[in-house]
Amino acid sequence: MSGILATPVILSHLLIAQVLQEGDLAVDATAGNGHDTLFLARKVGPRGKVYAFDIQEEAILKTRERLRQAGLEDRVVLLQKGHERLREYVPERIKAAMFNLGYLPGGDHKIVTRPSTTLAALEQVLEILEEGGLVSIVVYRGHEGGTEEGKELCSFVANLDHKKWDVVKIEHPNRSLESPFLIGIQKKVAGGS
Amino acid sequence: MSGILATPVILSHLLIAQVLQEGDLAVDATAGNGHDTLFLARKVGPRGKVYAFDIQEEAILKTRERLRQAGLEDRVVLLQKGHERLREYVPERIKAAMFNLGYLPGGDHKIVTRPSTTLAALEQVLEILEEGGLVSIVVYRGHEGGTEEGKELCSFVANLDHKKWDVVKIEHPNRSLESPFLIGIQKKVAGGS
Repeated sequence: MSGILATPVILSHLLIAQVLQEGDLAVDATAGNGHDTLFLARKVGPRGKVYAFDIQEEAILKTRERLRQAGLEDRVVLLQKGHERLREYVPERIKAAMFNLGYLPGGDHKIVTRPSTTLAALEQVLEILEEGGLVSIVVYRGHEGGTEEGKELCSFVANLDHKKWDVVKIEHPNRSLESPFLIGIQKKVAGGS
Repeated sequence: MSGILATPVILSHLLIAQVLQEGDLAVDATAGNGHDTLFLARKVGPRGKVYAFDIQEEAILKTRERLRQAGLEDRVVLLQKGHERLREYVPERIKAAMFNLGYLPGGDHKIVTRPSTTLAALEQVLEILEEGGLVSIVVYRGHEGGTEEGKELCSFVANLDHKKWDVVKIEHPNRSLESPFLIGIQKKVAGGS
């Protein structure tokens, strides 16, 4: 049994699960092998909807197969599009979004997320995020460009207005400096404490 | 309504609530105004037990009154003792422990937790922590000595064996460098993944 602090992915699910409810809308900005898409699809239930993006056909196929096996295809819109075009395909406000940066596990390690498109997607997600809604970003640093992407993201979130956004950075201080970390962003409720 | 990422205290309760169950034993290493003691007392239920430490009589009285109002005095052992003497008073294994460092809110700001006794208490807590058990430490940096205490703690947890301990440091990157942060430590289950 893995502990609740074991990985950034486990922690991201813990945070998202606190806010995402049946009937909600959510985005998986990096479908990859479909683990997060499946997690979101379960949480939003049959009345909810998940938009899942990935530029790689392999990722879309794997995610579709995973959803099919779980019988949860009905509530997921799979999009083989760059997540920087998110607003073209997500017309509604969302309650949660998940990013899992870097390359597709088991796929071509040269195809990685890039800071410019990652930040463009994140900005669009923040625009359509409901009050109380939450975004998780798992950042890997082991691959080429990973450290740089992590730094640009940290710089971006450090500049988010603390009156509007609660932002956390969650690291594992007793692991390698290249170990992945998690960023969580929650939109404050206006008039809330 | 505060968000789940709003403060280190809210996050500490979220983490502790994942592992602490009815009938468990827990420690509040810094009873203070009694908020964490009350939280732990509710979680462990009538069959559980909470040991709460504070060197200040004012803190013990406030905590006792808070427990009395909630009708939860029965399961709490209040100890006006330094938490560095924890092992003298806690003979059993525990599932969770909470630290809230710095001074007593509303009390004498010159009476603060100190790195040497904080680390002594933390070491003793880790010795008696059950597998899967969790420790939260909210670290304040605004007062004199606070920054130093935070650094010593970070250095200590960075050296915990990653094969035995999952450790997280949770910061708010869009706030002041003096804003409080949270450390979470979970003891891995032997033979677990």
